[in-house]
Amino acid sequence: MLNHYLDVRNFTVSLCENLQIEDYGLQAGEFVSPAKWHLAHTTWFFETFVLHPYCPNYKLFHPSYSFLYNSYYNAIGERVPRNQRGLMSRPTVKEVMDYRQHVDRAMAGFLKDNTDTSLDDLLTLGLHHEQQHQELFLTDLKHNLSYNPLLPCIRDIGEYPASAPQQWINVKGGIYEIGFRGDGFCYDNELGVHEVHLEPYAISNVPVTNAEYIAFIKDGGYGNNSLWHSDGWAWVQQHNISLPLYWQSEDSEYFVYTLDGKKKVDPDSPVCHISFYEAAAYSEWAGHRLPTEFEWEAAAEFLDWGSRWEWTQSAYLPYPRFQKAPGAIGEYNGKFMVNQMVLRGASVATSPNHSRKSYRNFFGAEAQWQFSGIRLVKN
Amino acid sequence: MLNHYLDVRNFTVSLCENLQIEDYGLQAGEFVSPAKWHLAHTTWFFETFVLHPYCPNYKLFHPSYSFLYNSYYNAIGERVPRNQRGLMSRPTVKEVMDYRQHVDRAMAGFLKDNTDTSLDDLLTLGLHHEQQHQELFLTDLKHNLSYNPLLPCIRDIGEYPASAPQQWINVKGGIYEIGFRGDGFCYDNELGVHEVHLEPYAISNVPVTNAEYIAFIKDGGYGNNSLWHSDGWAWVQQHNISLPLYWQSEDSEYFVYTLDGKKKVDPDSPVCHISFYEAAAYSEWAGHRLPTEFEWEAAAEFLDWGSRWEWTQSAYLPYPRFQKAPGAIGEYNGKFMVNQMVLRGASVATSPNHSRKSYRNFFGAEAQWQFSGIRLVKN
Amino acid sequence: MLNHYLDVRNFTVSLCENLQIEDYGLQAGEFVSPAKWHLAHTTWFFETFVLHPYCPNYKLFHPSYSFLYNSYYNAIGERVPRNQRGLMSRPTVKEVMDYRQHVDRAMAGFLKDNTDTSLDDLLTLGLHHEQQHQELFLTDLKHNLSYNPLLPCIRDIGEYPASAPQQWINVKGGIYEIGFRGDGFCYDNELGVHEVHLEPYAISNVPVTNAEYIAFIKDGGYGNNSLWHSDGWAWVQQHNISLPLYWQSEDSEYFVYTLDGKKKVDPDSPVCHISFYEAAAYSEWAGHRLPTEFEWEAAAEFLDWGSRWEWTQSAYLPYPRFQKAPGAIGEYNGKFMVNQMVLRGASVATSPNHSRKSYRNFFGAEAQWQFSGIRLVKN
Amino acid sequence: MLNHYLDVRNFTVSLCENLQIEDYGLQAGEFVSPAKWHLAHTTWFFETFVLHPYCPNYKLFHPSYSFLYNSYYNAIGERVPRNQRGLMSRPTVKEVMDYRQHVDRAMAGFLKDNTDTSLDDLLTLGLHHEQQHQELFLTDLKHNLSYNPLLPCIRDIGEYPASAPQQWINVKGGIYEIGFRGDGFCYDNELGVHEVHLEPYAISNVPVTNAEYIAFIKDGGYGNNSLWHSDGWAWVQQHNISLPLYWQSEDSEYFVYTLDGKKKVDPDSPVCHISFYEAAAYSEWAGHRLPTEFEWEAAAEFLDWGSRWEWTQSAYLPYPRFQKAPGAIGEYNGKFMVNQMVLRGASVATSPNHSRKSYRNFFGAEAQWQFSGIRLVKN
Repeated sequence: MLNHYLDVRNFTVSLCENLQIEDYGLQAGEFVSPAKWHLAHTTWFFETFVLHPYCPNYKLFHPSYSFLYNSYYNAIGERVPRNQRGLMSRPTVKEVMDYRQHVDRAMAGFLKDNTDTSLDDLLTLGLHHEQQHQELFLTDLKHNLSYNPLLPCIRDIGEYPASAPQQWINVKGGIYEIGFRGDGFCYDNELGVHEVHLEPYAISNVPVTNAEYIAFIKDGGYGNNSLWHSDGWAWVQQHNISLPLYWQSEDSEYFVYTLDGKKKVDPDSPVCHISFYEAAAYSEWAGHRLPTEFEWEAAAEFLDWGSRWEWTQSAYLPYPRFQKAPGAIGEYNGKFMVNQMVLRGASVATSPNHSRKSYRNFFGAEAQWQFSGIRLVKN
Repeated sequence: MLNHYLDVRNFTVSLCENLQIEDYGLQAGEFVSPAKWHLAHTTWFFETFVLHPYCPNYKLFHPSYSFLYNSYYNAIGERVPRNQRGLMSRPTVKEVMDYRQHVDRAMAGFLKDNTDTSLDDLLTLGLHHEQQHQELFLTDLKHNLSYNPLLPCIRDIGEYPASAPQQWINVKGGIYEIGFRGDGFCYDNELGVHEVHLEPYAISNVPVTNAEYIAFIKDGGYGNNSLWHSDGWAWVQQHNISLPLYWQSEDSEYFVYTLDGKKKVDPDSPVCHISFYEAAAYSEWAGHRLPTEFEWEAAAEFLDWGSRWEWTQSAYLPYPRFQKAPGAIGEYNGKFMVNQMVLRGASVATSPNHSRKSYRNFFGAEAQWQFSGIRLVKN
Repeated sequence: MLNHYLDVRNFTVSLCENLQIEDYGLQAGEFVSPAKWHLAHTTWFFETFVLHPYCPNYKLFHPSYSFLYNSYYNAIGERVPRNQRGLMSRPTVKEVMDYRQHVDRAMAGFLKDNTDTSLDDLLTLGLHHEQQHQELFLTDLKHNLSYNPLLPCIRDIGEYPASAPQQWINVKGGIYEIGFRGDGFCYDNELGVHEVHLEPYAISNVPVTNAEYIAFIKDGGYGNNSLWHSDGWAWVQQHNISLPLYWQSEDSEYFVYTLDGKKKVDPDSPVCHISFYEAAAYSEWAGHRLPTEFEWEAAAEFLDWGSRWEWTQSAYLPYPRFQKAPGAIGEYNGKFMVNQMVLRGASVATSPNHSRKSYRNFFGAEAQWQFSGIRLVKN
Repeated sequence: MLNHYLDVRNFTVSLCENLQIEDYGLQAGEFVSPAKWHLAHTTWFFETFVLHPYCPNYKLFHPSYSFLYNSYYNAIGERVPRNQRGLMSRPTVKEVMDYRQHVDRAMAGFLKDNTDTSLDDLLTLGLHHEQQHQELFLTDLKHNLSYNPLLPCIRDIGEYPASAPQQWINVKGGIYEIGFRGDGFCYDNELGVHEVHLEPYAISNVPVTNAEYIAFIKDGGYGNNSLWHSDGWAWVQQHNISLPLYWQSEDSEYFVYTLDGKKKVDPDSPVCHISFYEAAAYSEWAGHRLPTEFEWEAAAEFLDWGSRWEWTQSAYLPYPRFQKAPGAIGEYNGKFMVNQMVLRGASVATSPNHSRKSYRNFFGAEAQWQFSGIRLVKN
């Protein structure tokens, strides 16, 4: 456990490579957080839920941090308003790194001595929580830096891998078991293994590519209301959307901002930074549809997945027998089960050992800043 | 068909009883429409989709009405912005009533002579469209009048019926068939009969009463964030919600605005004008949950339903094999299948012959102005 | 006094000619009021400030009207929110007209018997208050109707008179007396006759014409930020302003909505429905400037004025020794003396006997819906 | 000139003492700028208006900086949106400091060789521009840091000096000369010396103290609408204002955030961080009024001024014969002459040698974040 703990914690710090101190505080919108905040909040989790209640003699690093780095755990007390995280120039980056070391040192001592396994679930949750924030660290960072006219270049995380050739995979109708089974970790929203009846369908082995999406653009997809949900059409018009997020059109060529700077759009790579609205409009244009999260899970082992989070046409809702855990930990998932769509799979920014076929990611239908793409299904 | 046509059309006009001319134009928000607009828009449906294309020699009542009374059918051309419907003092009420007569007379002639049954589906859709607007006529009217400090009294539509005694109905797990079967009319969103696997559950025979909901209020339900979805809690705080819509608290008694004026809240009647957020928070407080739309439909024949639209915990999504109809008619349902929750049942304001157990009503999670209530389920 | 009272009161009613009942309730924005509201609010003034306190045995027409038709007199108690005036379908037009008659009858009795002159100032204020609302009745009505795609035609009030030939009038520098002197009525904001030192200037005898303003438009005036105030440029861009209010460009001709319907823009008539921002940008483009309110008043007797309210470059501020009256009446003017610009003159919509050279009208710099125009000055 | 140049430039850098790198990028609202932006923008002024056009062989430090650090000079080309200045983590603080050195070195060379005095006005304007930004550097920094729950402590700039005993100074009526006369520098908005006729008045020798303002608070001043302008009352209610900016009430004591951390409010020091609305309401409550900017200037030599910018009841308008300079420099003042009130004097944050009695500062009536206070006048 200690080694795993240190691996995960160090991986977070490794994401800061090439960042300037000035970059850590950026917050370009309420839905993204500063890099520094992610570094501190993940640390706060272990201090608040592990060290403070269970480690005798543990000394809080700083009495205010509990207030500063709480995110949405209402049960823990007041919070800094979400849209003001970028205004916390203090604690400094150095102080936050010291906070991490303070907690990691205490955790190392605690884990070395501790033979009680009753906290294993909590520790594992804390590490998966941190891995989830590792991906948000990257997606938020990309979004925050994208506003800079200098288009800063951090490093190449392989955002645009090549795609395999497309083919349809036929799946039989019938009863499928959905939900997490096994010994390892899963979030509470994957629990409640249950039977779902599916009709027969065919699912694409690969996500939609940039070249395919460009055909939609060139065919006037963003201007054809009959392809869009009503809310999607309003979103397109209100925000003047005509391209995926981070794309620019120059002299009839397409360019895209990546963490490695500005690049030409690679036609063979899966389209990325797509909202649910865009995914649904594209699939309508293509004459197909998005999978349900159940269709996705039932076929997962035959799919080439992992480079893009894939929008499903399933809303994020509780599985049968879903139960919130008591206390603050119970706020992890259940309270978000409205007004969100499920994404399945994983992305180039997902941390190692943080994906499984039953994983349920979720965002609002307008969210573009994740590494999100499209997979098609037909009947 | 002609008789049915005239029955439905006349019922719409009968809803105007006791309205003053000044009342017809009110629009208190973008989500409600003026009474006059409902009268004209339902008429526009028959002129636009039946008389104009199919009735030779039909003369449009007025060349501008096609623009004035289109609602969301983008395929038909431009529209008056939805939030400006209340600014159309002209056409006057009398002109709109003349429009109705002009179209009804033409329809009567057309239906008398017409022996072609190929339009039956379209005609039936037009009448159900009008019945749907009959309920909106009442809910919108109530909302529009509720802003008037004089609390106008229109008439008693029986908004607060008594509820039967509560008991739990046990339903077995297994495969259930969901969706409309039969000969009569249904909307396209009910089609695609399909099998759904349900786990065993118990469902209440009656909706939650005002007395029960008042217990939630008095227990501090509106101030306890652990009961609410994250979006619901933000909604409560942003709008300072502390009571159902139209309620007022005076000297520790509760009063409510109805179309029959201000009344004391009846403890034995089903709670009404509840958002999904409130319904979900109440069910959390009560230790139970809302049904899925499938659980509701599977148990419908054993339930006492029809006085309140009942929030389910199902998002409004397409059934398997759902297909949009081609052209403007195809805009009826499909494009709303995101960011909405399903309500099942019917209400005291639903028109006669406009309910069935497979009917899927839908609104955003914050909508309160429908006659909406709560039914509980437990495992 | 009685005859004068009745003349003014009847003139208000005469403005309703050709209105449909549906027109009386329109409110297209927070800054305009429904016609019905003007009819009732002016009546409320006499009931609240004259009959109720001074007429023994006077019976209020309705106990709620005091709340319904108060405008901004905080001292009188709560008010209907300004943006909800259009939602008051009740009292009906007929009831409001009955209210007027009830008050007029009581006032007639009161004025016949009353030999006490101590109320003369209050009565005169009430009548000027009503005359001020007569002009707002017309400007608000025009604005409310302008949203109707049918462009309703009410009647010709001579909105676009011809202009005399332009010439410059030289005014000597020196001390001028500013403010109201004389026996008649004036508002408190005109009081405090005081000396102002002016430098020599030349002022145009006539306002700027449509033809002159069109030259500004065609020269790209709306797209040239160097002509605009910073706030004005932001206003132009936020609202996509490219023409005066109510103008439309069709096939390189200009049309304008008037209370008499849609007309071709008359090149020889003074430009109208211009914001201060537009007036200032035009004068910058023309190489001249707007007058101060003092320059305007000092030259008034030599000017051709009365068809357009003329924007000055003076902010609306108190004259020396300005005093608010005690109580609610004191809320008439003083509390608006910030963030407004002064307009001088009068317009085609100003009521008879309601103009004088010391009159200080005032609106925010972005207001376009008054009959406002431009007069130039040069040094 | 060179020595003066270096003095001013070095003083700007001295303001950064005790700042952490993380502090330089903060932007808590559209109306404030990051410290780093001030450092770069003042440098940009010399590069853009002096070195680039007049210094042969000058090499731009970076081709993008012209775009990044333009503020409101539309004539110079596009700009970074004002509300996104805080998102520019790059250029880093070090790069901006290098930019300053690059420009300062080039300016030193240029000024040493240059014997042409034709640029003196431009250079002087550039230095006064920088001094103006020195005060904004401090006021913006204070505002940006004030959102931090840790209430960072930077250093003591003497924000709360003691006030002398109050007395009234009588000023005779008559003609006074207003505007800048003399040999030194002034802004274009002070030019146009002109005669103004004043009535006799008495003006307080000192600004209103915290103790006096607390009496207003305790008397319910923030809740008494009769004291406020209409816009001021709306502002108080919309933002729940009940104290000056940066004040907190704890256990019936008042505390205030300063650049030196949290302090107890000193009763004898002039009240600070007051909007025009608050200043006007206070003066109404005190039975007096604010001075006009002319009354202030006429009496300046008898006043104890310089610790607070003092709100006047004068709107910011052009003096007679005001002319905008041609080109980008002409955008300095004229385009802001609407919707602003004049403040006279100087403050504890004003740079040395940057005050004079004719100086016209200006802000919107709601602005609180300057070191602004209140001086009373009576007739």
